[in-house]
Amino acid sequence: MIRVGVNGYGTIGRRVADAVLMQKDMELVGVTKVHPDYRVETAIKKGIDVYAANEKALQSFRNSGYNVKGVLDDLLKRVDVIVDCSPEGNGPQNKLIYEASKVRAIFQGGEDHELTGLSFVAQCNYDNARGKNMVRVVSCNTTALCRILNSLSNNFGIYRARAVLARRAADPDETGKGPIDAVVLDPATVPSHHGPDVQSVMGNIDVVTMAFKVPTTHMHLHSLIVSLKKKATREEVIEALQKEPRTMLVESKLGFKSTSSIVDMARELSSPRNDIHEAVVWKDSVSTVENEVYMFMAVHQEAIVVPENVDAIRAITASATKEESMSMTDSSLGIRKF
Amino acid sequence: MIRVGVNGYGTIGRRVADAVLMQKDMELVGVTKVHPDYRVETAIKKGIDVYAANEKALQSFRNSGYNVKGVLDDLLKRVDVIVDCSPEGNGPQNKLIYEASKVRAIFQGGEDHELTGLSFVAQCNYDNARGKNMVRVVSCNTTALCRILNSLSNNFGIYRARAVLARRAADPDETGKGPIDAVVLDPATVPSHHGPDVQSVMGNIDVVTMAFKVPTTHMHLHSLIVSLKKKATREEVIEALQKEPRTMLVESKLGFKSTSSIVDMARELSSPRNDIHEAVVWKDSVSTVENEVYMFMAVHQEAIVVPENVDAIRAITASATKEESMSMTDSSLGIRKF
Repeated sequence: MIRVGVNGYGTIGRRVADAVLMQKDMELVGVTKVHPDYRVETAIKKGIDVYAANEKALQSFRNSGYNVKGVLDDLLKRVDVIVDCSPEGNGPQNKLIYEASKVRAIFQGGEDHELTGLSFVAQCNYDNARGKNMVRVVSCNTTALCRILNSLSNNFGIYRARAVLARRAADPDETGKGPIDAVVLDPATVPSHHGPDVQSVMGNIDVVTMAFKVPTTHMHLHSLIVSLKKKATREEVIEALQKEPRTMLVESKLGFKSTSSIVDMARELSSPRNDIHEAVVWKDSVSTVENEVYMFMAVHQEAIVVPENVDAIRAITASATKEESMSMTDSSLGIRKF
Repeated sequence: MIRVGVNGYGTIGRRVADAVLMQKDMELVGVTKVHPDYRVETAIKKGIDVYAANEKALQSFRNSGYNVKGVLDDLLKRVDVIVDCSPEGNGPQNKLIYEASKVRAIFQGGEDHELTGLSFVAQCNYDNARGKNMVRVVSCNTTALCRILNSLSNNFGIYRARAVLARRAADPDETGKGPIDAVVLDPATVPSHHGPDVQSVMGNIDVVTMAFKVPTTHMHLHSLIVSLKKKATREEVIEALQKEPRTMLVESKLGFKSTSSIVDMARELSSPRNDIHEAVVWKDSVSTVENEVYMFMAVHQEAIVVPENVDAIRAITASATKEESMSMTDSSLGIRKF
């Protein structure tokens, strides 16, 4: 059993904790939290041990009457792997703490590639992470791009990839974030960081991305324009995408007309938290002209990196092959083809 | 004096009517309306003669106590040019009416190119419209794309143009339209109609567009990726765009971070209805890699076609050269460089 801790119980941490609970080769030792809010109650109801993120947090918990299991240092003594789901930018200081505790660590895409020197997407570079002490799971958008570009690259070769990312502005419970009625360039300069981030996983691929925020709370929408080295028909591209792990194809004629129809499908299928772990490509958007292929893709910003975190745990502990791990992860999370 | 009528007093019709009032070589004879609503009052307050769009509408107006000047047929007897701003798809039947009245007509971008055989953007093809009986002013998005691509084409040559359009979902007063919290593919297939529409103005240019709707009410946001025949620096591209008529460059460091900052600037400048007639390009987004150029552009969906309508009136009556007309239009509407 791999003993796992989750440092931070926010958008990603909560999901990773639940996913770890579903793995038969892993034990969730506990999670940390800074604030004694309703999320502590939801963790306790699930039987998850809660630790205070630091001494100050411990005092807050005691003042609120919560009996926590200790602080982060106590958790670190009891785990083989810590998944860092603390706020973006905490990575460098937390890395020192994890190193001092001699605990393997997984960071999220909010940190720089340089923090670990290895940016991870399971189907692209699982084996590179085997036995490493620290890896970084890349962001939701980069994860999705890597899956699709991995498929196109392996099947046809990529000459040039261009992507425009319409990003959801806030998660559903982030009530302080905007915009409400505007498109915000994010950033106004080109390229956005996503292109270089894809390169941190896939090497020297020619990829340029442009990004902006739109007033939605669920799913990013990517418009992809990719020149292939080997000319392909749309049927060949669709066939390749259908075979790619963690990639789902949907069609607008079945009612998938927007990002919210994808989420509604997940709600109907009782997916926990309406989560969608797959990169979702509109089959009817896949078109080719000469050697160029176009497609629309939706990306669930909160969920898509969860399977990558689970696989990263197995990769850095060298406890399973890529195929074994991805298979266990996918079947436990119910990753599906629609 | 060119005697002008406007058939339809909605989003475009109201603006075209006001713009005609500002032209010293034009007389606004009147506008038509179907429903006796508050827009009749606003027209009357401006001293504009209102006609009923048809006999049924005439009865509605009489029942509401409004004294209109007649019906569309009466208006047509008194004008040289009718600007058709009636709902999309009315073009074919209205064309017959205008032809029977021997009145020159201008249609909007909601109609098919084939209706008139000539799709119009002033700086691209003014002279082709001279003396024609009917032209079609293209849609807001196509107008903006044509302006920018005209600049790039004339200065550097275009090898391949790709654009992703994040469309505002509704105009501010369209309270029945969605989405509220979703990105809606529009359409899910690629290409969207905008590429072929650009070709209807600019000929056989290689242009592919992808489009979707986002929950905003003001300004579309275009992400442009254009391969140039002649390699150019970003400074050269910016210089070309600065010289292009009806094109404005803004910078995020001056606070232009979103579509709504552009509109806020128009409000500050007391632009009527907050209108922006220019295609607005973010200077800091203009980037080049090899022979490819990238940029973000904002398009005011309600206003950008207004100068084209005014020029089209002069073009089809052969009453001014392109330069004379564009100059009169721009100075009357206060078209500016920021």
